[in-house]
Amino acid sequence: MTTMEQLRAAKTASKALLRAPAERRNQALRNMADALEARREAILRENALDVEAARGTVSPVMLDRLALDGGRVAAMADGVRQVAALPDPVGLTLETVTRPNGLRIEKRSVPMGVVAIVYESRPNVTSDAAALALKSGNACVLRGGREAYRTARAIAEALREGVQAAGLPADSVTMLEDTSHASVGELMKAVGLVDLLIPRGGRRLIEACVRDALVPCIQTGTGICHVYVDGEADQDMALDIVENAKTSRPSVCNAEEVLLVDRRIAREFLPRLKARLVDGRLDAGLPPVELRAGPAAAAILGLPPAGPDDFDTEFLDYILAVGLVDGAEAAVEHIAAHSTGHSDAIVTANPETAERFLQTVDSAAVYWNASTRFTDGGEFGLGCEMGISTQKLHARGPMGLRELTTYKYVIRGTGQTR
Amino acid sequence: MTTMEQLRAAKTASKALLRAPAERRNQALRNMADALEARREAILRENALDVEAARGTVSPVMLDRLALDGGRVAAMADGVRQVAALPDPVGLTLETVTRPNGLRIEKRSVPMGVVAIVYESRPNVTSDAAALALKSGNACVLRGGREAYRTARAIAEALREGVQAAGLPADSVTMLEDTSHASVGELMKAVGLVDLLIPRGGRRLIEACVRDALVPCIQTGTGICHVYVDGEADQDMALDIVENAKTSRPSVCNAEEVLLVDRRIAREFLPRLKARLVDGRLDAGLPPVELRAGPAAAAILGLPPAGPDDFDTEFLDYILAVGLVDGAEAAVEHIAAHSTGHSDAIVTANPETAERFLQTVDSAAVYWNASTRFTDGGEFGLGCEMGISTQKLHARGPMGLRELTTYKYVIRGTGQTR
Repeated sequence: MTTMEQLRAAKTASKALLRAPAERRNQALRNMADALEARREAILRENALDVEAARGTVSPVMLDRLALDGGRVAAMADGVRQVAALPDPVGLTLETVTRPNGLRIEKRSVPMGVVAIVYESRPNVTSDAAALALKSGNACVLRGGREAYRTARAIAEALREGVQAAGLPADSVTMLEDTSHASVGELMKAVGLVDLLIPRGGRRLIEACVRDALVPCIQTGTGICHVYVDGEADQDMALDIVENAKTSRPSVCNAEEVLLVDRRIAREFLPRLKARLVDGRLDAGLPPVELRAGPAAAAILGLPPAGPDDFDTEFLDYILAVGLVDGAEAAVEHIAAHSTGHSDAIVTANPETAERFLQTVDSAAVYWNASTRFTDGGEFGLGCEMGISTQKLHARGPMGLRELTTYKYVIRGTGQTR
Repeated sequence: MTTMEQLRAAKTASKALLRAPAERRNQALRNMADALEARREAILRENALDVEAARGTVSPVMLDRLALDGGRVAAMADGVRQVAALPDPVGLTLETVTRPNGLRIEKRSVPMGVVAIVYESRPNVTSDAAALALKSGNACVLRGGREAYRTARAIAEALREGVQAAGLPADSVTMLEDTSHASVGELMKAVGLVDLLIPRGGRRLIEACVRDALVPCIQTGTGICHVYVDGEADQDMALDIVENAKTSRPSVCNAEEVLLVDRRIAREFLPRLKARLVDGRLDAGLPPVELRAGPAAAAILGLPPAGPDDFDTEFLDYILAVGLVDGAEAAVEHIAAHSTGHSDAIVTANPETAERFLQTVDSAAVYWNASTRFTDGGEFGLGCEMGISTQKLHARGPMGLRELTTYKYVIRGTGQTR
């Protein structure tokens, strides 16, 4: 089928979902999980073909992301079952008011309709995204990466079988057949067929969506996250947080990319930082962090100064830009100029300094004395996550089920006119 | 100043607003109202120049919209005072959770930053929009219509004086000096300076924003609203609702444009409709409604059949498209194909039919036994309104103060790492 035909089928399916009670949607989710396990061998067979084709053309890290085994398929099924067990996010009465004229106005949570997700190669995104969309009463349109297409198609077939066994349209889970660049363009322009487009991927994909999309779109994921170590910080705590935020998983969007240090403590703190992130890690057999320091910090550290782009780069690697600032206000200003509005942190023992920072840093998540790595739907207690929004409209930070819904006003009268 | 210089000044002002407590913002609003009254003569003088220049080039209705008098200025000041008295929408703790690891996560309402509004000639929009933006902690950028520029500038000067007297930056209220088409294009592309763009105006402006805007944008206002009269309706009530929805103010977006009638009652209801909307109104000296009926309805009414576009046109006039459908399900299908998702109503005495309609019509406001004319911030009890969103992302239906805010996550820890 063409992409437009597939989108029309998904839109039709979304209308059936609008009428489906929670129990039927949850039954579909449980069936989806069962079908993933029942079709495990077929999924692994297709995955082996994808891995074989990709070998040598992608990095070992990418290849590992792409590869499935029995345990990973079981984990995907488990994830779907966990989504089924979450509270229902649609049909909730969010507010209700009876007006003096007797009109009863209910604000009710409802599905978006069709949610389209563009993503890359991780196979579990296929089942995670489909589960979250279905749980929130939406049909989903999945446009996965080409190198994982056989795997994603096998997974989607299992999911569709599960949906259908619950009496809902298989097209509630629609995997685009066209994995060429053109299909992303069609998604972006499918006004009336796509109610929400979520690009999960690199900066170029997200920029293309912002520039070209005619359908509503949520920007996700780019994170130039800062940690500011204040002059009044507990320096041991600061070192723990900085190391964790940088090294616990450098390839993700909530990892720290820039460290700002209060000039008052630079001569004491920077040598300790180097000992911890470079020498200490080398001694422990861990990958050391490359420090790219601004001029003043570089002089203290005895390093060449950082390049002009180092404070505006999402390294996603064991690299950390290090700059000195004159206190918390200056840190806030630096962050306003350089942050992508994802996650930024202050380490300080002074509560007033902390509260001012928390109030004035304009990011989705602002931390006091904790690692930026906690910006995550699971860590926030949302039970799941469809991505992390770095925009202010509709959703900010980790997007859970609620962020996949909208609302409508339902007004019941007895003949009122105005 | 150039538009970009003005936008940068507004962005700087928005940072001061982020720190301004509610009492200071409310003081600014009360000052703004006082300044409008103190500068009444200057505002009326500028308005007279605008009216003089527009006379003969715009319709009498437009000229009346543009013209101010002492009473209208007082009403503007009053509107600003009412906004000052509303509850504060920012800095609210929307949710809070303490995680097992001890992290305290607060979801807090915060301003958007800079809200830009593009509008046409009604002078009160200048003060209404500025008041709502300031109340919600946002700087506003106003880009009014050229034919009302002198009036809007005089109003904005009063508002800026009021803001400044409360110790907040005058640029919190920024009126673009450039009223050429180019300034709208600059607003649309001012990434990082405009946090939310609200186009209030005709379909072409809104379409241009959807197509060209790189900044977040909310579509407002286009309303092809339907009333469906079910076979089980109280026909007297139906006639009241249909007449009110069509004729109480035909030029607004919540007015009815399409009437759908259950085929079962067409032979009884349509003659009564004609008696009420055409002959009855003529007898009463009121403007009659031109009925544009689909083929089957036209045959009953003895009229020529409607043209092909009549069921997809926002008439904003005393014109009503009339079609027959086979019951409520068919009405829902017609609405799905032709509605702009603004406001749609059913008139029926059957609660089950009504609830099915309310659930399956995918519009911002769905009514049972009431006129679509109630879709309005004031009528919904929001206390004010910045426009009516017809999109699903972020805001749907009447936008009040809450819809001019976003949220952020504030996380307080004691050294947690992941």
